[in-house]
Amino acid sequence: MNKTKKNSYSAYDREMLMEKVQMRMSEKRFIHVLGVEEMAVGLAARNGVDVNQASIAALTHDYAKERPDDEMRYIIETEGFDLDLLHYGNPIWHGIVGAYLVEKELGIHDPDILEAIRVHTTGAADMTPLAKVLFVSDYVEKNREFPGVEQARKLALEELDQAVYYEMKHTLQHLIEKNQVIYPPALTAYNAWCQKGYQL
Amino acid sequence: MNKTKKNSYSAYDREMLMEKVQMRMSEKRFIHVLGVEEMAVGLAARNGVDVNQASIAALTHDYAKERPDDEMRYIIETEGFDLDLLHYGNPIWHGIVGAYLVEKELGIHDPDILEAIRVHTTGAADMTPLAKVLFVSDYVEKNREFPGVEQARKLALEELDQAVYYEMKHTLQHLIEKNQVIYPPALTAYNAWCQKGYQL
Repeated sequence: MNKTKKNSYSAYDREMLMEKVQMRMSEKRFIHVLGVEEMAVGLAARNGVDVNQASIAALTHDYAKERPDDEMRYIIETEGFDLDLLHYGNPIWHGIVGAYLVEKELGIHDPDILEAIRVHTTGAADMTPLAKVLFVSDYVEKNREFPGVEQARKLALEELDQAVYYEMKHTLQHLIEKNQVIYPPALTAYNAWCQKGYQL
Repeated sequence: MNKTKKNSYSAYDREMLMEKVQMRMSEKRFIHVLGVEEMAVGLAARNGVDVNQASIAALTHDYAKERPDDEMRYIIETEGFDLDLLHYGNPIWHGIVGAYLVEKELGIHDPDILEAIRVHTTGAADMTPLAKVLFVSDYVEKNREFPGVEQARKLALEELDQAVYYEMKHTLQHLIEKNQVIYPPALTAYNAWCQKGYQL
């Protein structure tokens, strides 16, 4: 699955990938993953992003979400990750370390896909179109229910960049409201995007 | 004014200091400064902090608030400050650079006072009792009016640390609500304090 151009990702490839992902998570999370894929393929098509890349990124984005903390800590300590990550938990690890596991265990080497997985929970100052598609799809897929999701969905269909900023802003607000720690790169991302002038 | 122990800060010293501060700001800001001093002296007395240090820190905390941006930038560039500060503005500079100007121009060398001025807008992971008194007094002094100020005042009188956390949390929320950039050390401070277990 090194190449993801249109003709190299068959329905069979997709089925195989879904099987490998499904083995690693609860039924509820797998339903979420399929919702993200559906949204990501739609947003990709609207925004000139390769739909096969969108499908693969979406199917694999939560691949490491249910991996035991001990295994994740071991990978962070032994595979050259920033050790500051150890102060956080799976909500942060599953994107950054997840990209590593998706490459290593699922053999997906497409750098765009891996980058999209890496930043899918925090966002980043500079995001590729695919990374934006995954970031927003994860937030607004049809199974999500939270105050503001309808507005986020509307923005996602209207203008992807506005939806990215809406998500960054409201995720930070939600974390602070819940007295949760914030991973500093998420602030770096917010600080870059809040200067684009969106009034959301 | 190098020593600030009880007997070395007379009513005359205070008057002289007030004059020097008043020259540097609008009437409205000076009224705020006097409100901060009144609150800081009260919170100092309640919390075992030297009231003279509290008075001096409060009177001088906004000394650089109306200094021209060009002068502040020049000081940041030539006096060894972190050049990343240049990406922010006076709301951040007036504490950090202000402490430098208070020492240089007003001859106040007390490290506790200078540290309290330095962190009075961002807070910090580790704050001295004097720094907490100034940080909170600046937020809740009697002239302040904003949604939540009554609760912040109540917390200030009940337990200073809770008021510190309330202020950090609500200041971040307010900045994000207004699509404002956040100085990363303010997040570092919030991240440290949100792990103390307050449910505010």
